[in-house]
Amino acid sequence: MAKKEQSIRIPFDKMKSEFSRILLSIGFSLEKAEKCAGIFTMNSLDGVNSHGINRFPRFVKNILEGLVKPEAVPSLIHSAGSIEQWNGNLGPGPLNASFATDRAMELALGNGIGMITMANTNHWMRGGTYGWQAAKKGFVLLCWTNTCPNMPAWGATDPRIGNNPFVIAVPFLNEAIVLDFAMSQYSYGKMESLNSDGTKLPYPGGFNKLGELTSDPGEILESWRVLPAGYWKGAGLSLLLDILATILSGGRSTHQINTCSSEHNVSQVFIAIDIKSLHNFSLIENSILQIIEDLHKSNPETASAKIRYPGENVLETRKINLEKGIPVNRDTWEKLTCLRFNS
Amino acid sequence: MAKKEQSIRIPFDKMKSEFSRILLSIGFSLEKAEKCAGIFTMNSLDGVNSHGINRFPRFVKNILEGLVKPEAVPSLIHSAGSIEQWNGNLGPGPLNASFATDRAMELALGNGIGMITMANTNHWMRGGTYGWQAAKKGFVLLCWTNTCPNMPAWGATDPRIGNNPFVIAVPFLNEAIVLDFAMSQYSYGKMESLNSDGTKLPYPGGFNKLGELTSDPGEILESWRVLPAGYWKGAGLSLLLDILATILSGGRSTHQINTCSSEHNVSQVFIAIDIKSLHNFSLIENSILQIIEDLHKSNPETASAKIRYPGENVLETRKINLEKGIPVNRDTWEKLTCLRFNS
Repeated sequence: MAKKEQSIRIPFDKMKSEFSRILLSIGFSLEKAEKCAGIFTMNSLDGVNSHGINRFPRFVKNILEGLVKPEAVPSLIHSAGSIEQWNGNLGPGPLNASFATDRAMELALGNGIGMITMANTNHWMRGGTYGWQAAKKGFVLLCWTNTCPNMPAWGATDPRIGNNPFVIAVPFLNEAIVLDFAMSQYSYGKMESLNSDGTKLPYPGGFNKLGELTSDPGEILESWRVLPAGYWKGAGLSLLLDILATILSGGRSTHQINTCSSEHNVSQVFIAIDIKSLHNFSLIENSILQIIEDLHKSNPETASAKIRYPGENVLETRKINLEKGIPVNRDTWEKLTCLRFNS
Repeated sequence: MAKKEQSIRIPFDKMKSEFSRILLSIGFSLEKAEKCAGIFTMNSLDGVNSHGINRFPRFVKNILEGLVKPEAVPSLIHSAGSIEQWNGNLGPGPLNASFATDRAMELALGNGIGMITMANTNHWMRGGTYGWQAAKKGFVLLCWTNTCPNMPAWGATDPRIGNNPFVIAVPFLNEAIVLDFAMSQYSYGKMESLNSDGTKLPYPGGFNKLGELTSDPGEILESWRVLPAGYWKGAGLSLLLDILATILSGGRSTHQINTCSSEHNVSQVFIAIDIKSLHNFSLIENSILQIIEDLHKSNPETASAKIRYPGENVLETRKINLEKGIPVNRDTWEKLTCLRFNS
């Protein structure tokens, strides 16, 4: 119970200005600091602290190490019809990804569909960020990134494939339906958190050192044999997403990203579709509404089970956290407010 | 052992001409019969009898019922830049999908990327067919279809989402890497086959009537609660693929396709990318080769485990079956050769 009591709630603006203060002190311009701080704060606001406040110290560390270059901006390498290939120049991943999303939407305007690829970029934090960004502006977005090798291939014991998150976002009632699908069944962050609470995973999440499926997060953290979502299926999708990110961008592949401790220089793809260009545009909102209404009519397995679409929980979390403040660990917050750098 | 002995091997050309003979007798023109027969035979050649010879009688039945119209061809509804929306006019699914794949490649030429959507089409049989078709011509292809509701949403007990296969194909060494990812952990066809052999699934494949995870295919065939690949993850991806297929094509969604016994009139999306238009085209083959070489260096879990890329097994199966003939059940073959229709 002591752990739970350490949670405090921080207002959105307060958290954002704290991130911004730190980024300004390590080489970010005001505009970039504000934008990057906004993305980290939104991630925490939406309940994804693992890619918000909890990840921020590592982001700062990567900047201080020179792995992420605060003022680098993407440059165009090559243009081919509705495709553009960009070089991320090792700039901040969230800023590069947000830029790529905007640019994919610009390309989709007039072409119906537009694809941006980004070589030499950095960890985008939460993939869903860019899904929400595009869908709120009325575009469908498919995007994915490769990662360091953090998962064994199917039938193997050593990590050689990435969890390569794959995002699909669709506009819906001025908000969005956003799927953010990492290829591992559970994230290492989730398993660490459950392990420190002494809680088992609800379903097997990996193999232990004996090669047995296990729901004990501690055993998986020890073996590093996290389970691909859908066994061989998620492992196969991970490989294909890495191949596509690599060849479409001309950037690095998972095996070249190599070490997870200093993961940087990854490859990403962003495909935007302008649904306003479709003949049936005026019917689309109602069409999605019918699909969601049908989903919600499902018979729940238990009285308490809620059948939700991807992103539905986020809307509730966001609303609560905007009103009450964003829940964070007191220690994490205090350490953040004490961070000082001589820039 | 009796079951095994019922397997015989049929040469590719003999199987294809048998399919063609039957299609000609139920309203197909020579050209369409040959093409459709070729696709069914290739599926069996590649070891996918479930969408080859074993599925052919149901395809014939659907034509006789009028659900699939042998001579219908796709018509263009709307064009917007690098997107075209087509009406499949309830023609044969494999012919419509093959047409859409060709057309997506044509659109990608000059635009870099091209997207074809197909409303009012029919079951495409094996999604991988179109991946191989595009990749052998040097294009990347992403395509997917929706299906009838054959799987419960996550946390639900009644089938309302589809297994919506998702295909990604990449050219590789004059052949292809092809992922064909249905959203259910196992197909009903696979479970029926294992059940009749009295064999358990290697991993849990669904819930029994008591809501418990089970590896007994018989229990899942009884409950109709097949497991989404990756639990909530595959269920979420299924929903998003259905939404995209529906809104991008203007066709029917899974909840409208309704009954699985007479599944017809589905919606599909085909996105082709012309990798020759990329600045790094000359480096792509070597880049994929390095990724595959790294994958093959994995430590196998057991001495006999082979670490493969999606589609790697297919090449071997195809080679063996071309040499020795395609293995089929003797009864299935004999029934096929006896099929006669007065057209």
